Amino acid sequence: MSDSERLQKQMDFILEIDKSKEIYRQSYVSSGKRHENDAEHAWHLALMAMILKEHSNAEINLLRVMEMVLIHDLVEIDAGDTYAYDDKGNDTKRAREVAAAERIFNILPKDQAQFVRDLWEEFEAGETNEAKFAITLDKTQPIMLNDATDGKAWEEHGVKKQQITARNEKTPEGSKEIWKYFENIINKNVEKGRIKPE
Amino acid sequence: MSDSERLQKQMDFILEIDKSKEIYRQSYVSSGKRHENDAEHAWHLALMAMILKEHSNAEINLLRVMEMVLIHDLVEIDAGDTYAYDDKGNDTKRAREVAAAERIFNILPKDQAQFVRDLWEEFEAGETNEAKFAITLDKTQPIMLNDATDGKAWEEHGVKKQQITARNEKTPEGSKEIWKYFENIINKNVEKGRIKPE
Repeated sequence: MSDSERLQKQMDFILEIDKSKEIYRQSYVSSGKRHENDAEHAWHLALMAMILKEHSNAEINLLRVMEMVLIHDLVEIDAGDTYAYDDKGNDTKRAREVAAAERIFNILPKDQAQFVRDLWEEFEAGETNEAKFAITLDKTQPIMLNDATDGKAWEEHGVKKQQITARNEKTPEGSKEIWKYFENIINKNVEKGRIKPE
Repeated sequence: MSDSERLQKQMDFILEIDKSKEIYRQSYVSSGKRHENDAEHAWHLALMAMILKEHSNAEINLLRVMEMVLIHDLVEIDAGDTYAYDDKGNDTKRAREVAAAERIFNILPKDQAQFVRDLWEEFEAGETNEAKFAITLDKTQPIMLNDATDGKAWEEHGVKKQQITARNEKTPEGSKEIWKYFENIINKNVEKGRIKPE
């Protein structure tokens, strides 16, 4: 492959992933005016990684965490956002996302396609310290936005405390401190009636 | 300051910067359906840094570049987006942005406020290799979006080739290869009549 072909593939990928800006999540932005999209969500997680890294339970490579969160939802360009509490959607999620990864990452030159695939699989597996911390951020950021919007998305979906707790089973593995902070926010919102007690 | 006060300041900052998701730029997202916002733009630049780093003229610390682009527009939460070709707005830009930096970054604990301020000033000064590369990405990403939307924002503002060239005077300092790629795109759009020849 010539240098200019390589650069063109990189640019094609950079343009393709622009579509993340129109993949909307269930969370609202903090003003409550509209749903958040995947690109904004990923940006927010990368900033959280920068600012909160001292609270990771384990030593982490910050660059790796940031790269991971920046790409973690690209597969949703094809697979769509699967709402956390959509059990049926979650049954088919992996297959839909793998097909998306195959198509989207392979727009890149082969070495970079493999690099991004490895990052994504690392995030999905959740076994390295970096992936654990990235998952803690990914799972708690929507709690911040829900709290900021007086529980708007929680109320719309009638979310129960036990659903949030189950979904956050692994959140303390990345950071006990961050989980403790958000556990208090969850409890406050149960008291305020924005999350169903069970 | 107690540990929990420190964490609270960090979380306050993370919530405050959510407002970047509602600071709209002149560029359109690639579908052309709506304007791009600052959070999306910063996410796109961080991904560009990851994918395009091999094209930097000089050796760079990728983490530093990514941190820089992720925070580079936070001041616009208070100062607003100043359109590239708004000469009057650009006269007062620095003063408005410094005041914004003072308020927004100081929501963080002092050491982190200083860290983010230093990152932002480094970007603004454009002297380090990292800042030069970050600026190359910041200046060229809107060209990609303009090209993808058949010159929508260029046409709306009657942009001339010479304005784009002047604005990109320093773009080759970060990456000659990336600039060359976008110079071709600019010329193509002049030929198509989407950019005024002079």
